[in-house]
Amino acid sequence: MQLLRSRQNPVIAHMRKLGTDRAYRTACGEFLCDGEKLLREALKWHVEITAILWAEEPQSPPDCAAQYLAEKALLDYVTPLKNAASVVFSVRMKSWETAEPGRTLILETIQDPGNLGTILRTANAMEIDTVILTGACADVYNPKTIRAGMGAVFRQRWLSIERGALQQYLKENGLRLIGAALSERSADIRMTDLRGAAVAIGSEGQGLSDELLAMCAEELIIPMNPQCESLNAAVAAAIVMWEMKRERG
Amino acid sequence: MQLLRSRQNPVIAHMRKLGTDRAYRTACGEFLCDGEKLLREALKWHVEITAILWAEEPQSPPDCAAQYLAEKALLDYVTPLKNAASVVFSVRMKSWETAEPGRTLILETIQDPGNLGTILRTANAMEIDTVILTGACADVYNPKTIRAGMGAVFRQRWLSIERGALQQYLKENGLRLIGAALSERSADIRMTDLRGAAVAIGSEGQGLSDELLAMCAEELIIPMNPQCESLNAAVAAAIVMWEMKRERG
Repeated sequence: MQLLRSRQNPVIAHMRKLGTDRAYRTACGEFLCDGEKLLREALKWHVEITAILWAEEPQSPPDCAAQYLAEKALLDYVTPLKNAASVVFSVRMKSWETAEPGRTLILETIQDPGNLGTILRTANAMEIDTVILTGACADVYNPKTIRAGMGAVFRQRWLSIERGALQQYLKENGLRLIGAALSERSADIRMTDLRGAAVAIGSEGQGLSDELLAMCAEELIIPMNPQCESLNAAVAAAIVMWEMKRERG
Repeated sequence: MQLLRSRQNPVIAHMRKLGTDRAYRTACGEFLCDGEKLLREALKWHVEITAILWAEEPQSPPDCAAQYLAEKALLDYVTPLKNAASVVFSVRMKSWETAEPGRTLILETIQDPGNLGTILRTANAMEIDTVILTGACADVYNPKTIRAGMGAVFRQRWLSIERGALQQYLKENGLRLIGAALSERSADIRMTDLRGAAVAIGSEGQGLSDELLAMCAEELIIPMNPQCESLNAAVAAAIVMWEMKRERG
């Protein structure tokens, strides 16, 4: 296994850029992951691993991808995350071209990558068929999203759809849109029929945009202590997804 | 309003240490908060603010606490958080000496301050009476916990109890302990009677300790996609708290 020693090495430079530069990731069609747990998940789900960088010679390296050794300090340089793991690796992006109509969660402008990753992880656990990203969401392939997602990116069907094209998508897939928002017409989530519905969650600070609210057939709220303004976006999404799953068994 | 210019200024040095040093926080009985939103919350809940450091002269400064001006760079120096707000302030710790038996959530060794803050925020929203911290939890007064908690620290009753003293506490307060854990005896949370129960959530990596599991009268699971190993701890706690609230209205 080749030992890489320099920050100028093309493999090192490429991986670092995958970790830090969204436009470069998109252009290359690759993204950066870290940790042995995530590597096991990647292997289990047969995603295409393009390169692996180890801090120590592995006992039984997987039979795939180009593999290299480097000092731990060089791994720390490659990844933007604190507490870098003992292995980092790059993966080919896979797009889910088609939706699977069914349980659908729509995320509008979820800006925090940690929240986005946690929501994808929960969506996968709650058997959401498709997560739709719209507005200015964080990047699914940001290393922070990937870490919080715990491998959900390998398994969870998601699509990015412009706000202007959402209406058409909902119509084609026979989905009723319900917005998680407080208004005069909002109903208690426990009283809301979530079957055949897509539920939309808005951004951490602003909630859903007027444009998206105008598309909603209904609105729902999660009832809470009036002292509190709101829930964390990943928590609100989790309760919504749990309610979508709850009825179904 | 006095303008502070130096990192060596005692007020600056004190605030910075509150932000970074848990033992110092505990010794002083104060902690550091940031942001105008949190300041409004602190004023609303009549907590004791000990000092306020502004990046710009406020239009209508609150009538409390010693107040200072400093360059934004000095505020960035004071707080360990990225994207420091335009105001940081210190607050006197307030302990909730007694529990309010009722809906009780027990957290064992929740190590991530972001998760801990999010759980306290959700607990307050879901009208949990008491959150109990046991094992090696993150510090409630860590600035990251405070920020994720969005002011829950000012409102949410919480206690720290040694694992060895938990049994006694549960007995005195007539609480049945239910652990969130996967075992042969675990029941689906939807089939579990949560009234009069304290529910325990374990650490991000390891779940509940054997010592705590041995105290549990029952165990529950949140049913999920078998592809997924687990939920994020703050998400699991949110679903548990939502179920505790759900039945009650």
